[in-house]
Amino acid sequence: MENNLKPEERLDDLQVKGYRIIQNPSKFCFGMDAVLLSNFAKVKKGESVLDIGTGTGIIPILLEAKTDGKHFTGLEIQQESADMARRSISYNHLEEKIDIVTGDVKEAANLFGSVSFDVITTNPPYMIGAHGLQNKNSAKAIARHEVLCDLDDILCESAKVLRPGGRFYMVHRPFRLAEILSKMCSYKIEPKRMRLVYPYIDKEPNMVLIEGSKGGNSRMKVESPLIVYKGKNRYTDELLREYGLK
Amino acid sequence: MENNLKPEERLDDLQVKGYRIIQNPSKFCFGMDAVLLSNFAKVKKGESVLDIGTGTGIIPILLEAKTDGKHFTGLEIQQESADMARRSISYNHLEEKIDIVTGDVKEAANLFGSVSFDVITTNPPYMIGAHGLQNKNSAKAIARHEVLCDLDDILCESAKVLRPGGRFYMVHRPFRLAEILSKMCSYKIEPKRMRLVYPYIDKEPNMVLIEGSKGGNSRMKVESPLIVYKGKNRYTDELLREYGLK
Repeated sequence: MENNLKPEERLDDLQVKGYRIIQNPSKFCFGMDAVLLSNFAKVKKGESVLDIGTGTGIIPILLEAKTDGKHFTGLEIQQESADMARRSISYNHLEEKIDIVTGDVKEAANLFGSVSFDVITTNPPYMIGAHGLQNKNSAKAIARHEVLCDLDDILCESAKVLRPGGRFYMVHRPFRLAEILSKMCSYKIEPKRMRLVYPYIDKEPNMVLIEGSKGGNSRMKVESPLIVYKGKNRYTDELLREYGLK
Repeated sequence: MENNLKPEERLDDLQVKGYRIIQNPSKFCFGMDAVLLSNFAKVKKGESVLDIGTGTGIIPILLEAKTDGKHFTGLEIQQESADMARRSISYNHLEEKIDIVTGDVKEAANLFGSVSFDVITTNPPYMIGAHGLQNKNSAKAIARHEVLCDLDDILCESAKVLRPGGRFYMVHRPFRLAEILSKMCSYKIEPKRMRLVYPYIDKEPNMVLIEGSKGGNSRMKVESPLIVYKGKNRYTDELLREYGLK
């Protein structure tokens, strides 16, 4: 049966609507970034969403659970991840709401046509190029490093497939913030909202959540800091709320 | 005597080296932004500094007190502010270390020549254009709104007068962050370091401190959040340290 787990795979509880997800811990498991992005992204009733580089489908599954979006598409280039995503969708009986398409982000406009989506989400590879990689063909390397696609590819195709006024949501690393904001402006996905995630109140941020609007003006809103820990192994109340635990 | 106060002017203690500054509270007084910028900016021994839009000279005076910079120049277009700045410098006996030049930022490269400074600091007008202004010729309006110069003017001239590898420090408002980082990249003053100032831990930031490097690469460091208040009218310890009070 399609839902059966393959060797090394496990079925994890997503703590929302009873949904579960198939993951292979030796390959790649979703992290806090995916959860925070699924809360930061605003999907309105009836909207269509494309998740670029969906991996095991965590973001469309969480967004389906948390929003009134009409339909969700996950685009993933790695056949094995796409297969796990499809089996998770089948397990949760979400075939009517979520499609997984195996393909290259660089072909997004060819695959879906232009002006096809109201919302784009993406949790892309953070690291520049393949620098320092031992095995650049591994699932982990492709998910973390810009081996098969880079920021320009994602923004260029997003600008094509988003409708005017459509919204773009991304989680990334702060060390690339200047490049991110600058390139978003170049591709006319104007940055509108940003939140920095700081592990502790006195530490540097390690994630940034960004919303852009296709064709917006250049004023943006920077939100309050999201602090993860208030002490050793103790999450802040806000972080617990992000996980639906408070 | 040149140090004499004019009507409405007052002499304020800067809490460092016994320095004082002449201000006119009905015109414009320096704020926390100037103090934070003077701490955020790194000026090394022997370096030359230009402060663009120096107003009453607060930034060069504070930098002279706190750093081993060799020489400081303040550029100010408003004759009356420049006059107050010169009288403050005279009062503090800093004529050998600080020059105030009355002039337009758009003429900076003509006034000083290119590749003239190691460091630039600026606390520019934050507000776009002259929107909503009652009196766009008032000293306050010119200091706060982009009436006489805008971000492009400042970055364009800064790129000319900075030496290669020279550093650019600015305090601004977060709602303009995308425009700031994007334009810095365009003018090849690569953003390298940034700190957001949040009035309270659960509120949006109201200031951003930015360091750029002329001709740097595109990786940047976002620092820990600077939180101003820990309760009503109670400064955080870090903010007190910024003012030299802890």
